[in-house]
This record gives sequence, C-alpha cells and structure tokens, in this order.
Amino acid sequence: MQFRGDIPTPALLLDLDAFESNITAMAAHLLVRGKAFRPHGKTHKCPEVARALINAGAIGCCAARLAEAEVFADHGIPGLLITTAVIGRDKIARAVALAKRAPDTIYCVDDPDNVRELNAAAARAGVNVRVAIDLYFGRTGVLPGPPALALARNIASLAHLTLVGLQSYDGDAAHTTPFEARWARTDGSMAKAIETRALIERDGIPCPMVTGGSTGTYRFDAENPGMTELQPGSFVFMDLDYGRIGGPDGREYRDFKNALTVVTTVVSRPHGFAIVDGGYKAFSTDRPFTPKPVDLPGVTYGWAGDEHGRLNLTDSPREVKVGHRIEFIPPHCDPTVNLYDHLYALRGDRVEGVWPIAARGKSQ
Amino acid sequence: MQFRGDIPTPALLLDLDAFESNITAMAAHLLVRGKAFRPHGKTHKCPEVARALINAGAIGCCAARLAEAEVFADHGIPGLLITTAVIGRDKIARAVALAKRAPDTIYCVDDPDNVRELNAAAARAGVNVRVAIDLYFGRTGVLPGPPALALARNIASLAHLTLVGLQSYDGDAAHTTPFEARWARTDGSMAKAIETRALIERDGIPCPMVTGGSTGTYRFDAENPGMTELQPGSFVFMDLDYGRIGGPDGREYRDFKNALTVVTTVVSRPHGFAIVDGGYKAFSTDRPFTPKPVDLPGVTYGWAGDEHGRLNLTDSPREVKVGHRIEFIPPHCDPTVNLYDHLYALRGDRVEGVWPIAARGKSQ
Repeated sequence: MQFRGDIPTPALLLDLDAFESNITAMAAHLLVRGKAFRPHGKTHKCPEVARALINAGAIGCCAARLAEAEVFADHGIPGLLITTAVIGRDKIARAVALAKRAPDTIYCVDDPDNVRELNAAAARAGVNVRVAIDLYFGRTGVLPGPPALALARNIASLAHLTLVGLQSYDGDAAHTTPFEARWARTDGSMAKAIETRALIERDGIPCPMVTGGSTGTYRFDAENPGMTELQPGSFVFMDLDYGRIGGPDGREYRDFKNALTVVTTVVSRPHGFAIVDGGYKAFSTDRPFTPKPVDLPGVTYGWAGDEHGRLNLTDSPREVKVGHRIEFIPPHCDPTVNLYDHLYALRGDRVEGVWPIAARGKSQ
Repeated sequence: MQFRGDIPTPALLLDLDAFESNITAMAAHLLVRGKAFRPHGKTHKCPEVARALINAGAIGCCAARLAEAEVFADHGIPGLLITTAVIGRDKIARAVALAKRAPDTIYCVDDPDNVRELNAAAARAGVNVRVAIDLYFGRTGVLPGPPALALARNIASLAHLTLVGLQSYDGDAAHTTPFEARWARTDGSMAKAIETRALIERDGIPCPMVTGGSTGTYRFDAENPGMTELQPGSFVFMDLDYGRIGGPDGREYRDFKNALTVVTTVVSRPHGFAIVDGGYKAFSTDRPFTPKPVDLPGVTYGWAGDEHGRLNLTDSPREVKVGHRIEFIPPHCDPTVNLYDHLYALRGDRVEGVWPIAARGKSQ
C-alpha cells in the first residue's frame, strides 16, 4: 500500500503533519514551563507513537493497564507509569516481573491490602517497586489529605516499596466546560494534591512527583507551580469530543489539530443515501454525537448498525457513488483506536508507515 | 489458566452449557422445518464457534466482510456467504482469490458496475464466482421487484458469475417490538423477496436461494415456505438487547440463554461505590442501556470512562471489596466480542478452551 487510496477500508489514518504539529506544540508548552511530560499511552496504544513522543522530549509513557505497559516495555519504551492499580495475585506477580526488567516503572496504589501484597511479592522477587498514591477525584483513589497520608506512612513502612509521588488525575476536569470552569475545577483538584504532598513531606516521607492533567487542562496545570509532570493523551490525535470542550474564546477548542480519521468506502447507494462500510465496529459510540465527514459539508452520518453508516445526501455538495472513499473525524479517539490493529501514517497521500497498535485490547 | 477465577480481567467468558443449548435449540428448530442453516459469523468472529455450528448441522457461515470470510476460510470453514458487497479493485481481486480456494463462497451484490468488475476479475482469474442479489429493506441492496430482476438479467448475461439467490436480510425487523409487530414486519419483507425470486425465475433465470432472518425473526421465517435458509447470529451468545425485544407473552425474550459475560475486577472502592476495570474498552456502548451485573440484584453499573465502570452499592445484597470479580451480561454482543482477542470457554468454573476471536477487527 503506497497511497491513501490503496488502504483497505474501514481503516484508521494518521495525518503525520498534524500529528507532529500536535506533539511539538504540547512538548514545547510543557518543557518551557519546566514540567516533565509523560503522555498517556492509553490513547494510542502504539509503540511508534510513544517513541515519537520520547523523541520530542517525553520522559516516558503512561499506561492505563499492566498489559498495556508490558507491550510498551516489550518495545523498549522507558518511564512507564501504570495509572490503574494492579489487583490480584497473578497480576501482582506480573507487575513485579515487569519491575525487574523495567525498574523505572511506577505503579499506582490506593488500597492498603494491595500495597501489602505488592510489597510481599516484591520481597520474594528481590526487587524494589516504585509506587504512586492514586488520589480520588471522582473515580479511583484515596481521598487527598489524611487518608493519603495514612497510605503514604503504610508504604514508607514497607521495605520493598518506594513512594515516588502522587497520581493526581481528575478525569472529569478534562471535559468541563466552559474554559473558565475547567480552569477552576483543575486548579481546585490539583491544590488538594499539592497540599497532600506537603502533608506527606512534612511527615518526613519524600514524595517528589505530582502528576496529572489532560488535553483539556494542560494549559492550567502547566502554570501550576506544584505540578511536577503532566500526562495528557488525546492531543496527539484530537477528536470531536475535545473540539467541543471550548477554547478561551468560548468557541471550538483549537489547541490541537485533528490528525486522526477513519476512512470508509461507499458500498451501497440506495434512494438519496449512501451506505458506508463503517458502523459500530469502526467507531466508538460512547459519545452522543456521530462521526463527522471530512470535505462533505451538509452531509450527516447516521448509525446503520454494526457494520454500516448511512449518509444523508440531501444537502451533499457533490455526487457520491459506490466506491467513493469518505473520511470521518471520530467522536472519541481512545476507544476508536482500540478497535483497530494498525494505524496508517500518511504524509499527504503517501503511506509512510503502517504502525501496529500493539497494545490494542491489552486491558488486562 | 485452569479456572474461572484465574482469568485476567477484563475478559470475555462463554458458558459452554448455555452456548450448546442455544445451538441445539436453533439447529433443531430450523432443521425440522427443512430450512438450511447458515449462521452469521459477524457475531462471534471465532472459527471454533463456526465449527461448533457446522457440527450441529449448519451448512456454512455468513461473514459481514471479505476479511472476516478470509479468516474463516483460513480455518477451513466451508459455505461462506459474504453479506456486504465487495467494492473496489483491490478487494475484488481478493474476493476472486478467495473464490479460487473456497469455490462455494457466495458474494452479495447490488450495483451493476460492481457486478461488471467482479465478472471481469473472475474472467481474468479463470474462476466462476457465485453471487446473491442483496435486497433493500432499509440499508444496503436493490429494491425487490423489477430493479432486482434487472440486476439478475445483468448477472445472467455475464459468463463468469452465477446467480445463486437472494440475500434478504431486514435488519430492522430483528429488533421490532412487540412480538406480533416483528412477525408482521418480517413476513411483509420476506414476501417481497419471495415474489422477486418468482419474478426472476419466471424470466428463466434460476434463483434457488432465499436467505435471511435473525435471532429476532427466526420463528416466523422458519414457518415461511418461501425461505430456503436462515442466517441468525446472536442466538449463540444472546445479550441484553435481544432480551428486550419481547417474547410471545410480551415479556423478556427467552428463546436463548445468556451464554456470554464480561468478567471484571473491583480495582478501587471509594465511598459507597466499587470501580471495576471494564469501561468503554470492555463493552460496546451503542445501546442506551448498560451492562447488567450477574448475581448482584439491586446493583447498577454506570460508565466511568474508557477503562472503568462504577457500581452503585447502596442496595448491594453483599459486601464488595477490592479484588472481587464481577460478571456482566453485555448490552450488545457483536460489537462487544469485537473488542476482545479471546473467548474463555467455560464448563462450570473450568476453562475448557481459550478460543481466538481470529476475525476480530477484520472488517476490511
């Protein structure tokens, strides 16, 4: 496959110019403000993308899950931070095995029993495991303040664990609108994390790292002197959802370019509609809005089942025939990427690479 | 992995007793009524499941896409019927290559240009390609009646194509409620297909097959003397969606058992909630309702992002702790299966097999 038009559909396309521009913009913004940059790999699950980020100055790569981190480690990606607690005997054994071959890996914890089991497994394996306390902002974690201090003391008492800092991710802040409310929300959450870090360090326990932030909040978190590193993910690709969170002017969020599209083919052309070969198996459907056609203003996509989408051509600016290829910006990038085995990296219309999404489905 | 409790989560589990009961029930129902049985592989994308169906009397396996059919052919599954038109030069070349090694494969068509290109490619390869006319009932296809006859004449005039029948799938009929409306809808649609077949045959063109039907309509279609074969898919697994279409008593549709679950682990336990490790990447989200916990009456699942779900434990009948494993019936089986690389086949709590979902993501 040499050119855009040769790629079998449905397929995931990456516009390299937009992608590189997104990486450069984020890296420059964070590095100039003295923040470490550990972008989240759950968005792309792709070692080539992780490597491009490291080449741009990232210190590593976050992973949502142990299996995702194992894939990144297999591909030589350093500086892994697993942002979900690793629970249960078998997974803890795998976590310790990963710590042995990738000793800088950081594991998030929020539960005293889990911390005890992790320490015991680390002791048996003769390794030291680096952990971060996951703070609760509505999903997983322990409450900031005294509960986090109690867990820090617990960790500090265990010989085979080292506390490296706080995982301070407020998932709901990322999509808070408008811009000013998002700013207030993340500043409020991050202030609790920074106070918690001070509380822990006043107790004599080193706690150097405060990591968090997202594509939606990076501007605010980067100005926060208490944050040591940021872990945004979606900015590499962007999607319709992030476009809607709103910029400082109250309009579309335009800090990053839409680098990711799904290309489909018109496979049937009944009665004023075009049926394309992309449905629930080609796009994530967790957002209330639907894929947006590129270069077809006035044309709307409607779901037509697992395998198909239906384009209403009533207001189409051009003729659409069987065999025509139509690209869409996906509503939500992360779970859309998780449907595909490959990413076609395009320079203009030329295929520069076919990148395996090696950690696709690696949620275990 | 020997036992249910050893399987790393999130994972897809198949209860073999329920699965075998579903297969036996459907096969017996159709075979006793003299209908051929070509279940749809888009549901399971799994050669082991296709083989179990053939062992129960199926004549083959439908595939939604060429790439899916290629995988089934690689695994020796006969009697393939590809229910979406194969569009474009490269895919037509692959289709002809598949017809060469699996000559009984049937390809759906609805477009004269596509038919001409398919014939030309078949001529170049020196093979005969079997085609079925896809009839329009709201998605893809040509209109029943004279438009279908015109396409049949077109096919009959081409030396390297053989018309084998009509693909008569009314996707919307499958989920029409209540029971009586579903009956009326499928009978109305199938009547048009059967009249179209008569029209084509009166024209001197053999058109032996009328295939269609679904897990929702099989009872009605199996009584229809004009239908020669049925192609239901979801009955092997069942899901919440099919439970809601309603049975003859107006209550839950109980013709088949829920054989498929997603198992998750509680990874965090903040404030009256339990966070499990299954979110948008563990369940398809295209239905308005959410995964249903097994054995936890009163407990509801709420989406908590790409990687997590949140269980409200206010009315929980039992304690739920970090590390507990919780299973869910998925809202919609097909796109949920498409998220996983393996199916764990369980006999009670014992893992009898780990079956690759070999055609996962093979939508091209």
